[in-house]
Amino acid sequence: MILDNITEEINKANNIVILTHETPDGDAIGSSLALYGALKATGKKADVIIPEYPQVFSFLPWYEEIKKESKEEKYDLAISLDCSDIKRLNGFAEYFENAKTKIVIDHHGSNTMFGDYNYVNPNSPATCEILISVFEYMGIEVNKGIGTCLATGIITDTGGFRHSTVKPETFEFTAELLNKGVNISSIYRRVLQIISMKQFEIRRIALNRMEFLEDGKIAFTYITKQEQEEMNLQTGDHEGIVEFGRDVEGVEVSIFLRELPEGGYKASFRSNEYVNVSDVCLMFGGGGHPKAAGCTILLPLEQAKEKLISQTKMYLK
Amino acid sequence: MILDNITEEINKANNIVILTHETPDGDAIGSSLALYGALKATGKKADVIIPEYPQVFSFLPWYEEIKKESKEEKYDLAISLDCSDIKRLNGFAEYFENAKTKIVIDHHGSNTMFGDYNYVNPNSPATCEILISVFEYMGIEVNKGIGTCLATGIITDTGGFRHSTVKPETFEFTAELLNKGVNISSIYRRVLQIISMKQFEIRRIALNRMEFLEDGKIAFTYITKQEQEEMNLQTGDHEGIVEFGRDVEGVEVSIFLRELPEGGYKASFRSNEYVNVSDVCLMFGGGGHPKAAGCTILLPLEQAKEKLISQTKMYLK
Repeated sequence: MILDNITEEINKANNIVILTHETPDGDAIGSSLALYGALKATGKKADVIIPEYPQVFSFLPWYEEIKKESKEEKYDLAISLDCSDIKRLNGFAEYFENAKTKIVIDHHGSNTMFGDYNYVNPNSPATCEILISVFEYMGIEVNKGIGTCLATGIITDTGGFRHSTVKPETFEFTAELLNKGVNISSIYRRVLQIISMKQFEIRRIALNRMEFLEDGKIAFTYITKQEQEEMNLQTGDHEGIVEFGRDVEGVEVSIFLRELPEGGYKASFRSNEYVNVSDVCLMFGGGGHPKAAGCTILLPLEQAKEKLISQTKMYLK
Repeated sequence: MILDNITEEINKANNIVILTHETPDGDAIGSSLALYGALKATGKKADVIIPEYPQVFSFLPWYEEIKKESKEEKYDLAISLDCSDIKRLNGFAEYFENAKTKIVIDHHGSNTMFGDYNYVNPNSPATCEILISVFEYMGIEVNKGIGTCLATGIITDTGGFRHSTVKPETFEFTAELLNKGVNISSIYRRVLQIISMKQFEIRRIALNRMEFLEDGKIAFTYITKQEQEEMNLQTGDHEGIVEFGRDVEGVEVSIFLRELPEGGYKASFRSNEYVNVSDVCLMFGGGGHPKAAGCTILLPLEQAKEKLISQTKMYLK
């Protein structure tokens, strides 16, 4: 069984590197630090290497121990968490490739199985939830610190328990975490509720110019390069905007354009019921999931808008 | 034990009326319909009387069976759910007062214990969660229909499992509901996520003029009588606006003014960490909870704003 192999490889490794996907979210950082804390508790030497990560997760235990790089040339064991493809490991794929043994733990259905051992469960709402069974198998106790990391991944990847990916086990495990003193309410507030003043301002701009087209079935808005520069926006600051349009009654598809530094637009699509926005984005060389997809379009605003809307219209009922 | 009395009274009653508080929310309607469904399942004759209620809950089982009034002059048993005070039963308090026996089931700490039997638990995040123990005690099985009603109350009163009132039992019970086929994700979406076009428009207006005062510690915004009339806003359409200000980093107090049809303003206050907004509102004849309170102020906008802000400032660190 794969969990036997994973346990054995972890037990025999003297130095372990933990890696995750680029532009890491709560599940990426939460699972990395949970595994780090668990390995540390069992006396293992491990490094978590993440070159860039958002400050919003600074409340997590072991956050200060994340490394931006490592001088280690060859790890005994590399463990990739929450990452579907070796390409998404980005600048630090070499640590993975150079390691003697490679393990992949993930919940993306699109995982390319790029490890020697791949423990991938697309039915799990978060990689953090998969780690629970790993820890249980290995006999590692989930204490408050590890639990805080795991809860963070579960909360962010389920939109605060709202997605249909949430299973009875997710709620049962969260109940156990509460019993162990993990402050679910505080984590929720930090990772999903509070936004920075910059995020507020850019949301205000985007909402202010949001249009509802095709009898209110399409919501459309955008932000310019100039606005992003003037406000000194960072990665992730525009997140949440496309969902505002999606969550208005009657809207089937929400489209949000973000002008890129090099020109052109990154388009984010969300749909509610029946439009497969991944198909729409495929027409522009992009892709994603049926209800959340994206593409890049190298045209001026009005032309980009016209093309994307015309294509989307064809899928409306 | 009180649950013995409640069981006995329900068993011996031939006709039962279920009542809840005015401007009913998800926990009020959810608990009323859950109890209605449960009584019906045990062959009891019951009426749920609610004169006005939001359409957003129309997906609930037995929603069509809610009555706006009743010709019954005297019920054997009246059960008040989720209501802290007989005054809040509003126009239908007479059904309660005229009943032979009166039961109060609630989770408000401020409950005035106005029944013959009062089953009140302020530690419970929702009246729906209290009903679980009632049903269990009475041996009534929580099926998918009853579960859908209970989940609705829990989801709305906990802000989607985010409040610190949520207990391990809340998550454990939700896990059971999922196992019974209750669609938690769909309920969440209907009651917390989707907003109407009118709600979107009024949010946009209020956000557009939101100001951040006192080094960003106070968020302030308002909507006018004219805006509400032009958009034909209904009760509840302005909900959520005050929380936008509260959830911006650095804000301690968020204030939202809604002009009243008769002139003057209804002020809603929310705080994050240390300001007791109930104390602030008390100065203007209002009140509420430490982190959520309100008052009415009969002054023109600029004067109302000035007075409320000056008072709030005194509580800032």
